[in-house]
Amino acid sequence: MIYITRREVFNAAHRVFNKDWSDEKNLEVYGKCANPNWHGHNYNLYITIKGNIRQDTGYVADLKSVSAIIREKIIEKIDHKNINLEVDFMEGRIASAENIAVAIWEELEIPIRKLGAELHRIKLEETENNFVEYYGK
Amino acid sequence: MIYITRREVFNAAHRVFNKDWSDEKNLEVYGKCANPNWHGHNYNLYITIKGNIRQDTGYVADLKSVSAIIREKIIEKIDHKNINLEVDFMEGRIASAENIAVAIWEELEIPIRKLGAELHRIKLEETENNFVEYYGK
Amino acid sequence: MIYITRREVFNAAHRVFNKDWSDEKNLEVYGKCANPNWHGHNYNLYITIKGNIRQDTGYVADLKSVSAIIREKIIEKIDHKNINLEVDFMEGRIASAENIAVAIWEELEIPIRKLGAELHRIKLEETENNFVEYYGK
Amino acid sequence: MIYITRREVFNAAHRVFNKDWSDEKNLEVYGKCANPNWHGHNYNLYITIKGNIRQDTGYVADLKSVSAIIREKIIEKIDHKNINLEVDFMEGRIASAENIAVAIWEELEIPIRKLGAELHRIKLEETENNFVEYYGK
Amino acid sequence: MIYITRREVFNAAHRVFNKDWSDEKNLEVYGKCANPNWHGHNYNLYITIKGNIRQDTGYVADLKSVSAIIREKIIEKIDHKNINLEVDFMEGRIASAENIAVAIWEELEIPIRKLGAELHRIKLEETENNFVEYYGK
Amino acid sequence: MIYITRREVFNAAHRVFNKDWSDEKNLEVYGKCANPNWHGHNYNLYITIKGNIRQDTGYVADLKSVSAIIREKIIEKIDHKNINLEVDFMEGRIASAENIAVAIWEELEIPIRKLGAELHRIKLEETENNFVEYYGK
Repeated sequence: MIYITRREVFNAAHRVFNKDWSDEKNLEVYGKCANPNWHGHNYNLYITIKGNIRQDTGYVADLKSVSAIIREKIIEKIDHKNINLEVDFMEGRIASAENIAVAIWEELEIPIRKLGAELHRIKLEETENNFVEYYGK
Repeated sequence: MIYITRREVFNAAHRVFNKDWSDEKNLEVYGKCANPNWHGHNYNLYITIKGNIRQDTGYVADLKSVSAIIREKIIEKIDHKNINLEVDFMEGRIASAENIAVAIWEELEIPIRKLGAELHRIKLEETENNFVEYYGK
Repeated sequence: MIYITRREVFNAAHRVFNKDWSDEKNLEVYGKCANPNWHGHNYNLYITIKGNIRQDTGYVADLKSVSAIIREKIIEKIDHKNINLEVDFMEGRIASAENIAVAIWEELEIPIRKLGAELHRIKLEETENNFVEYYGK
Repeated sequence: MIYITRREVFNAAHRVFNKDWSDEKNLEVYGKCANPNWHGHNYNLYITIKGNIRQDTGYVADLKSVSAIIREKIIEKIDHKNINLEVDFMEGRIASAENIAVAIWEELEIPIRKLGAELHRIKLEETENNFVEYYGK
Repeated sequence: MIYITRREVFNAAHRVFNKDWSDEKNLEVYGKCANPNWHGHNYNLYITIKGNIRQDTGYVADLKSVSAIIREKIIEKIDHKNINLEVDFMEGRIASAENIAVAIWEELEIPIRKLGAELHRIKLEETENNFVEYYGK
Repeated sequence: MIYITRREVFNAAHRVFNKDWSDEKNLEVYGKCANPNWHGHNYNLYITIKGNIRQDTGYVADLKSVSAIIREKIIEKIDHKNINLEVDFMEGRIASAENIAVAIWEELEIPIRKLGAELHRIKLEETENNFVEYYGK
């Protein structure tokens, strides 16, 4: 068993807020992260998959295929977009880094399995000081 | 003469577009950077000042004072904000990295001079692949 | 279960030595790290907590609160300080990165639990080439 | 139990290809990574060992000894070398990052044990976008 | 006048040697960098152009066009290649970082001018410890 | 004319203070940087030299020789040392980053000239947020 990680980056706008709360409550809980006019980040997304090394290729899976899946399922939908307004897999979710990471896991788990590997971890860096890691349920 | 640089970071939403153009023209010129729903970045801002080393302090200027000026004049106005909608010193300017750097120069030139130093360079990194540098007119 | 990490930095002086040993023995075991006149580092401290995502906030815990605890319990005591002479939670411990990481765990375990999350990992980078990770006993 | 990591770097040429395949098949599977005239990387190698903190030294193991082992067993053999042609521990293996990581584990497992610690993880970064991690069988 | 920089990366094999010298002389002058079986690097290439900000676009030049030129003229020719054997613009030149930077300047100077800007600087990082900068003759 | 930069790192303790001032005055001017028990940093030192590319070597100067000079004249004297107490070239100078950079310039200017190149710039990074650059008088 070996673990392979691919980094992809995306730049997006978002706002952390709970639509069931008043602006005051949102501001109280989230501070400047709730700014109604949005703010944004350069996100670093690290996708880790695990599997056995194939004897014939020396690879667990072809990273070009892994990258193509990540680009199709995630990056094309979220890069240079508004996470709250435009990203289908984030509909109905608060746009926290935690929830983005979980949603990305859900989008990638099955496509990665079809490649013959298993999704192991989603790591999402929002800033150089904050990141989240999710390993599935 | 010696050059001192202070880095500050800010996270902001923006959209690059020319308000005198149609959406089609904006899309053609700016591509995904013109997304009407915004996108965003973690900006790294490097402020370089120059001056002589003071005999009594060993400093050109106290970096805590430099940082305080940058925070008051720039970071508090732009961090977790929408550059197009909420930043007074960007009013009437297209929100390109070039224009942001020039506007930051204009905000800081006089306050830095009052500290007894000269502003030398504004460097603004928008992503790990793109940055601009401005040295004044 | 999801894992959230907050980075904080501190700059400190230290010396790695065993007070029960002669200077010669310390020099033999620790080399230049035992220098009696101290040396120092920019430490990167990564605090990882784990927990469930709260339905109402989208957060495991508010990172501002996590950061406030780390600042109160650790950074204010160790930043711009001498780790051997001035840091209460390091009293009686050799100032190796290993021991600093364990001591930081002991300081943070209970305060993080009071936030409703669990401390998962202390990662302490002493240089770009050396770091330690501690997950509790 | 605590985990200690040492980074070492090496610069090497390689080519990913299966010698039992035609050039066409290699090109199809590996793309530009199969270039017969080689290409190369700056590899970042992170060696993680685990063990208990020794009461007398505050260390799991002396990092200078760990570094000396890594340099003797790995870096001197692979740095500024051709991984396919010149590295004994890679003979008969396809020069993928996965296989390099496994081979490094096999070279280091016993020497690290002789230091009184256990090898925990080999992490090998090939580029800023791709890395592999191996924890032994 | 403002300065815009675009980073591109490439991974390549090379060997620093003077074909008019014996192997012994090459080894004496270049050490392990002359290894006949090649070694390689992840190169970071920073292309800086300068010009005035266009009133209508807020750009000096469209970075997508700049990137397209760099990719066509440089990256497609050198990425995953052997710099000594396969890169037309390096023919007859010793493959030192200095000479690579000068050759890249010569390839890009005129195409960048056709975009309405001026090439200002080529910065080429060979490792995290070594880089060169060239500003033209 | 081309510019070559070599990075070296050192870890040192220091204290910024003026010995002619009271402790109160030092604390007022320098804040926590004046801590009498010292603090410390991982310094990144970038030495830039300039010269013409030699026809026979493709180098301005051999970076191994440049590195050897920097190690002999600077790193061996300052790494894992107390800058205020133990570094001969800092005697009588306040240990600010500005003064360290100027002192390093003075130590290296003549030895670099003897290599057939000219010292161009000393860049000294004290933290990821603060650095100084000195180009000589």
